[in-house]
Amino acid sequence: MTIENISCNKSFGGWHKQYRHQSQSLNCEMRFAIYLPPEAVNKPVPVLYWLSGLTCTDENFMQKAGAQRMAAELGMAIVAPDTSPRGDDVPDATDKAYDLGLGAGFYLNATKAPWNHHYKMYDYIVHELPALIEAHFPVTTQRAISGHSMGGHGALVIGLSNPHRYSSISAFSPISNPSNAPWGIKAFSEYLGENREHWRQYDACELLKLAISEVPVLVDQGEADSFLDTQLMPQSLVDIAQAKGYPLDVRMQAGYDHSYYFIASFIEEHLKFHSLYFKPEIGVT
Amino acid sequence: MTIENISCNKSFGGWHKQYRHQSQSLNCEMRFAIYLPPEAVNKPVPVLYWLSGLTCTDENFMQKAGAQRMAAELGMAIVAPDTSPRGDDVPDATDKAYDLGLGAGFYLNATKAPWNHHYKMYDYIVHELPALIEAHFPVTTQRAISGHSMGGHGALVIGLSNPHRYSSISAFSPISNPSNAPWGIKAFSEYLGENREHWRQYDACELLKLAISEVPVLVDQGEADSFLDTQLMPQSLVDIAQAKGYPLDVRMQAGYDHSYYFIASFIEEHLKFHSLYFKPEIGVT
Repeated sequence: MTIENISCNKSFGGWHKQYRHQSQSLNCEMRFAIYLPPEAVNKPVPVLYWLSGLTCTDENFMQKAGAQRMAAELGMAIVAPDTSPRGDDVPDATDKAYDLGLGAGFYLNATKAPWNHHYKMYDYIVHELPALIEAHFPVTTQRAISGHSMGGHGALVIGLSNPHRYSSISAFSPISNPSNAPWGIKAFSEYLGENREHWRQYDACELLKLAISEVPVLVDQGEADSFLDTQLMPQSLVDIAQAKGYPLDVRMQAGYDHSYYFIASFIEEHLKFHSLYFKPEIGVT
Repeated sequence: MTIENISCNKSFGGWHKQYRHQSQSLNCEMRFAIYLPPEAVNKPVPVLYWLSGLTCTDENFMQKAGAQRMAAELGMAIVAPDTSPRGDDVPDATDKAYDLGLGAGFYLNATKAPWNHHYKMYDYIVHELPALIEAHFPVTTQRAISGHSMGGHGALVIGLSNPHRYSSISAFSPISNPSNAPWGIKAFSEYLGENREHWRQYDACELLKLAISEVPVLVDQGEADSFLDTQLMPQSLVDIAQAKGYPLDVRMQAGYDHSYYFIASFIEEHLKFHSLYFKPEIGVT
């Protein structure tokens, strides 16, 4: 479980670093980035895992979200993994489509060939990566999870499926009900096959219906997001949460679109939200 | 003097917009970006012009610096032009070098062929672009100027040469004495010819020696910047400023490099610095 440092930049008194390592879950070399706040020099800090959207790598969030300022202030590390397995022997969509294969792992464990050898992003994000982070960096086992679009889907699914591992969940513009959205239907059909029963474990709406433990959820959604009605559909989450009294807050933000300009505008509030639940007395171990 | 809007994103309650227009100075189509803070809806706001470094376009700063948050709070517009003329008929370095030609205009008026038809970035930044901005957007004629690396050179040179047009100047990691730095010597030789007398008007150290009007200058420089000793040399500015008592503050920042992670860490302080001098009573008209 070795990791190799490949870049290092001082940022708001802390450090942004990129690493590569051989992933056992994904059977390929992976890259991730971590932001360590200044406080991490003196004591272990909690970690926010950030899952990016289609076509992204670890770099989009770290370069564009402007999250480091508040992470430094709150004393929180941020880990940004890649969005799919990578490498010459990792299969991609035959037409190189942006919404399947490389850059589009959908944070699930694929069961169908040719995807099932490498596309195990669920295992990677839930188990392998946190184990690696907690072995190599000055962090606690307090974890939160967030993401954007496909990564918002990932954050909701992974957080709701593992309430003992994450103290809070948030998302920007998540694919909230992938079983009923073109992106999700295409990916799930390819990665999991046509039996929709197998899709339910990766659909935030299905998981929210079943949720017993109440991990608080914050969602921000731009009203000017061109994918809102066709792909994202956060109202489905709202309806389920309201029906069962689940602590899920979906905030519709007038005028905002699907871009990182939107994420940057509200990331501070997401970090503060997660920070509330990092209190030691309710720490997740 | 028409401009065409090509993108629009809500950001911190204000708007990031990109435009293209036909430049008279540069004889080509150009793109620029503007950030308009929420306050611009109600009344004209002052403008910070940001000049980017080698290889950049308007997008690097707007996507990576995280400046919009504080610009929104302070009620300041930010304009980010491109770093050179662009287009199929604009000459580039024969070897496509990153430090000459496209993406490397050095904010001067070229006098030597083949550059002298298009490479008039000085005129574009000092005259054409502000006239365009002030004709089309809700801004005052209060201006400040800042930039990074080659753009830090540009900000210092343009600000010191036009003290009546800018109320304050700042720079990150500027090429402080280009006449004595490999990047500057290469660019000036090509754009201006071998007569070093013609270089002096574009060298911040030469201009600082001659400066009579005292426009306040703030410079941040990372101590871990790999270009510090060979290309940037801010100590030359410090020595001249100290000798004549000029209000120039060069801050050496331990551990920081040449990247946008450095810029993002201190951009808030630069915006606050410029904001101090935007007070109406000392407004520049």
